[in-house]
Amino acid sequence: MGWDRRLVIAFHFHAGRRHLGGGMVQVTMTALEGVPLVREGDDLAGLLIAALERGGTGLEDRDVLVVAQKVVSKAEGRVVDLADVTPSERAETLASETDKDPRQVELVLAEAEEVVRHKPGVIVVAHRLGHVMANAGIDRSNVEGGERVLLLPVDPDASAAGLKARLDAHFGVGAGVIVADSVGRAWRLGTVGLALGAAGLPALMDRRGAPDLFGRPLEATLTGFADGIAAAATLLMGEGDEGRPAVLVRGLDWQGEALPAAALLRPKAEDMFR
Amino acid sequence: MGWDRRLVIAFHFHAGRRHLGGGMVQVTMTALEGVPLVREGDDLAGLLIAALERGGTGLEDRDVLVVAQKVVSKAEGRVVDLADVTPSERAETLASETDKDPRQVELVLAEAEEVVRHKPGVIVVAHRLGHVMANAGIDRSNVEGGERVLLLPVDPDASAAGLKARLDAHFGVGAGVIVADSVGRAWRLGTVGLALGAAGLPALMDRRGAPDLFGRPLEATLTGFADGIAAAATLLMGEGDEGRPAVLVRGLDWQGEALPAAALLRPKAEDMFR
Repeated sequence: MGWDRRLVIAFHFHAGRRHLGGGMVQVTMTALEGVPLVREGDDLAGLLIAALERGGTGLEDRDVLVVAQKVVSKAEGRVVDLADVTPSERAETLASETDKDPRQVELVLAEAEEVVRHKPGVIVVAHRLGHVMANAGIDRSNVEGGERVLLLPVDPDASAAGLKARLDAHFGVGAGVIVADSVGRAWRLGTVGLALGAAGLPALMDRRGAPDLFGRPLEATLTGFADGIAAAATLLMGEGDEGRPAVLVRGLDWQGEALPAAALLRPKAEDMFR
Repeated sequence: MGWDRRLVIAFHFHAGRRHLGGGMVQVTMTALEGVPLVREGDDLAGLLIAALERGGTGLEDRDVLVVAQKVVSKAEGRVVDLADVTPSERAETLASETDKDPRQVELVLAEAEEVVRHKPGVIVVAHRLGHVMANAGIDRSNVEGGERVLLLPVDPDASAAGLKARLDAHFGVGAGVIVADSVGRAWRLGTVGLALGAAGLPALMDRRGAPDLFGRPLEATLTGFADGIAAAATLLMGEGDEGRPAVLVRGLDWQGEALPAAALLRPKAEDMFR
């Protein structure tokens, strides 16, 4: 993934540093209202800037703006009309084994490095981006036209970095941006938000060496910081007709180098489940 | 798990209903400060009530209080001194294969229904509670005395319900309570918060049938609501010397029946990874 593991060594993290009068720590999440329906070629950064200004929050240093993958993909033109897809023989076979549309399976295979598991209704793949997820994150809902589906952004970390650059320049701050998707889990029901892309914050934080309350080193000290933020913000987004594709998270803080969401991927050599 | 799947059918969910002047939706998370170190037999509900009153937030209808599993386990006396543990032959074998303390492995096996995978440093089990997790959630950090470890609560959903009953009665409200732990993931690095126990809210929410922006039914509409809230609150807890074991989440809303965290467990028959 081009990410240098050495970067994550030896910084400390203190989450949620907004200290109130009573010594409390507070984080506020605000869903941006009035973001219009996004279409291919739209200036998503411009739409987000307008919504932040209209909502009155603006954007401050260390704010994190979490943006739904769907609107990022739409703005980047990642919509595919299934009528334009010709399934391969492999896709036809897998589609019949999984009771899925062969054209959609063709797209799943095209987006995947590896099929990890499959059963009727679901194909778990290692996406070319490295994320292990159902159906390669391809989504049919909230795409205009019943035969259209939405692929993940080509490079969600780059999408996040691009949005961050625009937001930072406009507001004169250093913010974090996360591109979030809702995903299923192997052993649990229900979706949770997860970071596909991140910029301006350590997506993976290494707290190795931070002492616990009794002064011993912590055992499990790698924190999926961007995934936690994505899960939090997704609570406000909804997935249906709410139309709230961006959430501003204010009050978090962090130390250390920024790392992209690619840093969250477990190397295949350490993977016990594929 | 005794949970009736039919309960989750056909209710709608609208997250984060705090509508501000500009039509925005806002959720606030506040870490409770000044919760003292918890020890076996402590009145955890009383300590949380005192912290809520001292912090000035009180507790309102539909507030969700997220409490770290560690302090629940401590209050419930789930501390084990490794000096009192005699490893079985099976534990000795697995310990040598995983480079772990045989006494700790003995406890992992005692807490597990099934060993799912193992390699040096980690044993992934299906916990007797149903959660698939590393090392059965047994934790050595933040337990006084280097030879002591902490098991998960006997019944975290019951722990959450017990705390909820005390909090509701004291403040005269209907709140949600989540018992949260930080866990690793199969395909991703870093821990995220997850709900081991829940009361007063739908831990799993079924939005099947809620229309999307274009009126079609949503495809993936089961939401891991309590897991998302746990992931969010865990951002503020830290795991080291912060000593912030409880986070108040205000501004979420939900409809439908309350469901415990047990509802989040994927039935083994549907599990593709064990």
